[in-house]
Amino acid sequence: MKEVVAGVDIGGTNTVIGFVDAEGVIHAGGNLSTPDYALADDFVIALDAKLKEMMAENSGLKLIGIGIGAPNANFNKGTIELAPNLRWKGIIPLVRMTEEATGLRTRITNDANAAALGEMIFGAAKGVKDFIILTLGTGLGSGFVVDGEVVYGHTGFAGELGHMIVVEGGRVCGCGRRGCLETYASATGLVRTALSLLSDRRDDSTLRELRGSEITSRRIAEAAAAGDLIAQKALDQTARMIALGIANSVIFSSPEVIYLFGGLANAGEALFGPVRKYADELVQPVFRGTFRVEPSGLPEVQAAVLGASALIWKEMK
Amino acid sequence: MKEVVAGVDIGGTNTVIGFVDAEGVIHAGGNLSTPDYALADDFVIALDAKLKEMMAENSGLKLIGIGIGAPNANFNKGTIELAPNLRWKGIIPLVRMTEEATGLRTRITNDANAAALGEMIFGAAKGVKDFIILTLGTGLGSGFVVDGEVVYGHTGFAGELGHMIVVEGGRVCGCGRRGCLETYASATGLVRTALSLLSDRRDDSTLRELRGSEITSRRIAEAAAAGDLIAQKALDQTARMIALGIANSVIFSSPEVIYLFGGLANAGEALFGPVRKYADELVQPVFRGTFRVEPSGLPEVQAAVLGASALIWKEMK
Repeated sequence: MKEVVAGVDIGGTNTVIGFVDAEGVIHAGGNLSTPDYALADDFVIALDAKLKEMMAENSGLKLIGIGIGAPNANFNKGTIELAPNLRWKGIIPLVRMTEEATGLRTRITNDANAAALGEMIFGAAKGVKDFIILTLGTGLGSGFVVDGEVVYGHTGFAGELGHMIVVEGGRVCGCGRRGCLETYASATGLVRTALSLLSDRRDDSTLRELRGSEITSRRIAEAAAAGDLIAQKALDQTARMIALGIANSVIFSSPEVIYLFGGLANAGEALFGPVRKYADELVQPVFRGTFRVEPSGLPEVQAAVLGASALIWKEMK
Repeated sequence: MKEVVAGVDIGGTNTVIGFVDAEGVIHAGGNLSTPDYALADDFVIALDAKLKEMMAENSGLKLIGIGIGAPNANFNKGTIELAPNLRWKGIIPLVRMTEEATGLRTRITNDANAAALGEMIFGAAKGVKDFIILTLGTGLGSGFVVDGEVVYGHTGFAGELGHMIVVEGGRVCGCGRRGCLETYASATGLVRTALSLLSDRRDDSTLRELRGSEITSRRIAEAAAAGDLIAQKALDQTARMIALGIANSVIFSSPEVIYLFGGLANAGEALFGPVRKYADELVQPVFRGTFRVEPSGLPEVQAAVLGASALIWKEMK
């Protein structure tokens, strides 16, 4: 019997389940439509049924635990709290509910901390004791690992680099404040920077042929690669803000590596090159040359499930 | 025989030694004039002789280890590295040198991390697993404690909140960059803010009667207490920048308490009141109400020696 952990990635539209072994190989997969379940209780019943169904189809596997990645998840308390993208309102004790329904050890954390655990157990951070992972998507998520442990803090919500204020009175953020790093250093931030440059400058740009809603981080990256000046400047300014976030993180935990993960990180050297240059320029001199900026070692489509399962595998190792 | 640790606080002009027991009581004290020793080797010989002399005078005490607080000290490597205020140039392996001379277990860290350890072992942070200490002096030092352990990071230099860039292109910092938090949120930062307000505004102020070099953080605090508008604004703006530093730290490690220590913290409620108000306003909403801002629990004149000794007592407990 091969032992596996169920990695469960709860998203606003879809919940992805994978049976992950100790080496990070996914042996079976399943899905649930998250918004079909108005109540978390119904979701847990459906999750338990789905796991039983997957087990029945895979007689060679032994399920030993459940790791869940979810928005607004609290590792310390085992809860999902006030998640704006889920139908379940208030504070949901999902770990307790799942353990009662399944009889299996269950842990939960948010997507970025799960990404950190996935990187540590299965990815590029094996053997790295001090690192940071930045997930560059719609927002900027972050996971901090200090001396081999994810930092959860007193509340269980630690590791919110995206909400470091870097420009006082700057761009409006979804959190209700202004100038948070993620309003600049994310896929959405890149688009906002491009729009700002289009309004500020007079240069020709292929982006001017698009409707505002058509200007995406991918389009900007493509235009930059094709030599579009506005797109190149937008990418460069975004890289600089990511680097500022890195410089302002390194002073806290002095990591060996900063891993970049998610949509924007796929821009490759066009992003990593300037990020590394600016990070070296912006960081406190004592830390210059003491850290590396590297891509994540996990395949993007599997990362969430692998990271969620790593919650349990971390405890077993 | 009562077991004691030698807490050694190495400063640019004076080295203070105290024999500290497990309860934080100082049983004997001594001094060395740091700049008398051109070479670290000579300093270590003198330190060993001084410790032997102090032991001879205190026959009821048993010395079990040496904890050292020093500028630019590296906990991981046991070194002092490129300290601008000491005569010893380059990288000094002070822990190894001291252990060889004395035969006693020796540890070293910088002043702010020593303050964090002192607070944890002897001060207000007993039993607090997640906290931050800010030392508000000439600069802004910081120590981060996560799950009961000081964060040293990959390099051993972690915990440099004073060098978070909070105003891009802002005030020139001693580190060679611009806009570091400590250029605003420190005793020196308060003075710079007062000078800026004196140049910017036309209000009467008792500070205008002073030579520039006479404007100190203490004078400003006194003027503010006496109703001076410029001084009050300077204190308020400084409190706001300290609060910004707190807000931008809480997102990392989600502490239960932030302790303020050092000269500026002696301003009492005139500082703590606005710092608390602004921290609540500036912090990411999810952390609002989850942390306290409190004064250090250590007497200022003993804190450095107690903190240095805590390096050893932490390992014994």
